[in-house]
Amino acid sequence: MLDDARARDAADPLREYRARFALPDGVIYLDGNSLGALPTATAERMAQAIRGEWGEGLIRSWNSAGWIDLPRRVGGKIAPLIGAAPDETIACDSTSVNLFKLIAAALRMRPGRKAILSEPGNFPTDLYMIAGLEAQGLAERRLAPRDRLAEALDGDVALLLLTHVHYKTGEVFDMAALTRAAHAAGALVLWDLSHSAGAVPVDLNGCVPDGEGADFAVGCGYKYLNGGPGAPAFAYAARRHHAALEQPLTGWMGHAAPFAFSDDYAPAPGVERLLAGTPPILGLAALEAGVELIAEIGIERLAAKSRALSEFFRIGLDRLGIELDLVSPTDPMQRGSQLSFRHPEAYAICQALIARGVIGDFRDPDILRFGFAPAYVAFEDVAEAARHLAEVLETGEWQRDEFRERAAVT
Amino acid sequence: MLDDARARDAADPLREYRARFALPDGVIYLDGNSLGALPTATAERMAQAIRGEWGEGLIRSWNSAGWIDLPRRVGGKIAPLIGAAPDETIACDSTSVNLFKLIAAALRMRPGRKAILSEPGNFPTDLYMIAGLEAQGLAERRLAPRDRLAEALDGDVALLLLTHVHYKTGEVFDMAALTRAAHAAGALVLWDLSHSAGAVPVDLNGCVPDGEGADFAVGCGYKYLNGGPGAPAFAYAARRHHAALEQPLTGWMGHAAPFAFSDDYAPAPGVERLLAGTPPILGLAALEAGVELIAEIGIERLAAKSRALSEFFRIGLDRLGIELDLVSPTDPMQRGSQLSFRHPEAYAICQALIARGVIGDFRDPDILRFGFAPAYVAFEDVAEAARHLAEVLETGEWQRDEFRERAAVT
Repeated sequence: MLDDARARDAADPLREYRARFALPDGVIYLDGNSLGALPTATAERMAQAIRGEWGEGLIRSWNSAGWIDLPRRVGGKIAPLIGAAPDETIACDSTSVNLFKLIAAALRMRPGRKAILSEPGNFPTDLYMIAGLEAQGLAERRLAPRDRLAEALDGDVALLLLTHVHYKTGEVFDMAALTRAAHAAGALVLWDLSHSAGAVPVDLNGCVPDGEGADFAVGCGYKYLNGGPGAPAFAYAARRHHAALEQPLTGWMGHAAPFAFSDDYAPAPGVERLLAGTPPILGLAALEAGVELIAEIGIERLAAKSRALSEFFRIGLDRLGIELDLVSPTDPMQRGSQLSFRHPEAYAICQALIARGVIGDFRDPDILRFGFAPAYVAFEDVAEAARHLAEVLETGEWQRDEFRERAAVT
Repeated sequence: MLDDARARDAADPLREYRARFALPDGVIYLDGNSLGALPTATAERMAQAIRGEWGEGLIRSWNSAGWIDLPRRVGGKIAPLIGAAPDETIACDSTSVNLFKLIAAALRMRPGRKAILSEPGNFPTDLYMIAGLEAQGLAERRLAPRDRLAEALDGDVALLLLTHVHYKTGEVFDMAALTRAAHAAGALVLWDLSHSAGAVPVDLNGCVPDGEGADFAVGCGYKYLNGGPGAPAFAYAARRHHAALEQPLTGWMGHAAPFAFSDDYAPAPGVERLLAGTPPILGLAALEAGVELIAEIGIERLAAKSRALSEFFRIGLDRLGIELDLVSPTDPMQRGSQLSFRHPEAYAICQALIARGVIGDFRDPDILRFGFAPAYVAFEDVAEAARHLAEVLETGEWQRDEFRERAAVT
């Protein structure tokens, strides 16, 4: 497997990009789906943002360093990765907060409908943000398994809220089919792209032709966009909805004229109305550097390598005789940039691998998850990870007490 | 005035702290009330957070570097500056978003009451966040001038929302009297401490004895706490309210067990229920360094120097024969760490001063504002700023076209 891996690495058109990330020695990092690695350019960009823009420029940098434009500018750079126009995408707040804004906005655009339809087992924060609006008396959460979503789309549904690539299994929804189904039922659709952006092709605008594409989307900056821990998230609203979009987090940065300091709120005309408070400049600067690098590589090349890496792992495990319960689709076109396995001792196996320098992750209660961030993971990493996993399982070293004790963040 | 200033600087017990900030050469910075200066320790702390914790530690740093505890840890360090307990204060999101959470929570705690009382001319985002809940049909915004607030507190008022130090004038509300008045009317009170924290003494818990202090507070991390541009904000909820506090931005980080990945939301028992999405680690790391420095100096020493600096400016202008319309209180105990003047050409005067290296700021339509961040502003800065202001006014150099053209951020 190792020789094969090295041959693949030598032929990899993305091989030079690995050096653009600061990866620690002795680590095989298969958790870029949780926290993307540090681009080397980011460290320099941040030193400039901190010492130059903040330290030297001080308040003047809102204009001179373009801080005030960062949410739009970074959003505009994310846009081509998700099939959106630059003026439909903005970087701000967290994914959770952006979900709240857009769920609430959808409810206002569909008066008389209160149901927000999602699937059980969606990423918790997506479900919880519906619950937040439910507790306000404004929404009703409705959950249906993914094969029953179409029939659950009735005249009460204001919004279909789905995560495009499932965080546990990596399963990919058919964005075109579900967007059509939602629209046919008179509902809007909001796609959570947290596990998609920067890893799999997404075409928000084009998934359905004739201006009938997705309505809203949100996504995460710290996974495949490599924006840093807790990076700002992004939000997308199709241009056709801008004029009617009323979200409740009406902070001063979403105002049409923030520096007029008026007592009365008037939303900005475009996607800027999704802004709330003062933008997090340091986080946005780091996110911009990550997005620029991912955009430079390009989503088609990233997705192709992602599929090749995960297939190499899946088939490699088979050849090593490892029998694990794969919960991800076997067809790489049907999954995101990850492979997940169910095992009752997933936590301990994950810890034993980490002790060997192979960092994957665990998702409660029994999922062992490996992410294949295509910008910096090599085929040799994958071959070595497969060998370590085989050894951990064969030796039973995961049974040590030290690997079974739970940490705060699992 | 310069000799006097130098003598004051030589006797200033805080004089050594100036070197703990990275202030640019040739600049007199009187805008720390808008964006605090960069602490030198922050640049080092951020290099470690970026290269060490993110780059080397990767996902492991959620545990090993204590990232998961940062919102609580930074909140706990802000707490003594505002008269709160560490377990009542948390650092997260923006001031705007935190306002929304706490206004909504107050409405739920006062069923049958919908009015949120504030004053016209409060900082816009405070008023706009009330408007956001009003547009959801959950709140009614009620505004009364500050001398009529007490009589506007009737049985419909769920919450009194005030900014402790006014952003334009620097006027300070009597926190004890207004907290008592709100409680006497059966209302809760939320203090916006954006222009207070780190500059003037605040006693949220102790302003009224016997556990009848303030209910809620929010504040800004990027002014006198020196957390960096767009730093995370903070939120305070008195411990007596924790069990009943239901805020609508129910993201996964506010869950009692975020890593159980349950479909159903259950709030964390304490102030952590104010969290929503994944915490912004880079922003929190910078904020922590700023707060540590401010806490080391101590709020009483900071406030004493703040008053001395602003008085030195006010009296110095008088002695220079400058007649400007002061809109801040003349009594330094009645104002925050700033002096504001009304002038129809405030914008151009501000720009002319910036061209001379004296950075104050302008607030639409006619306010010229000078902040005296006590941790790093020297009396000599103040003397020089007064001299420059006198020269700008006497020469009329502000009349040049270049000073009258408005920038994006004013």
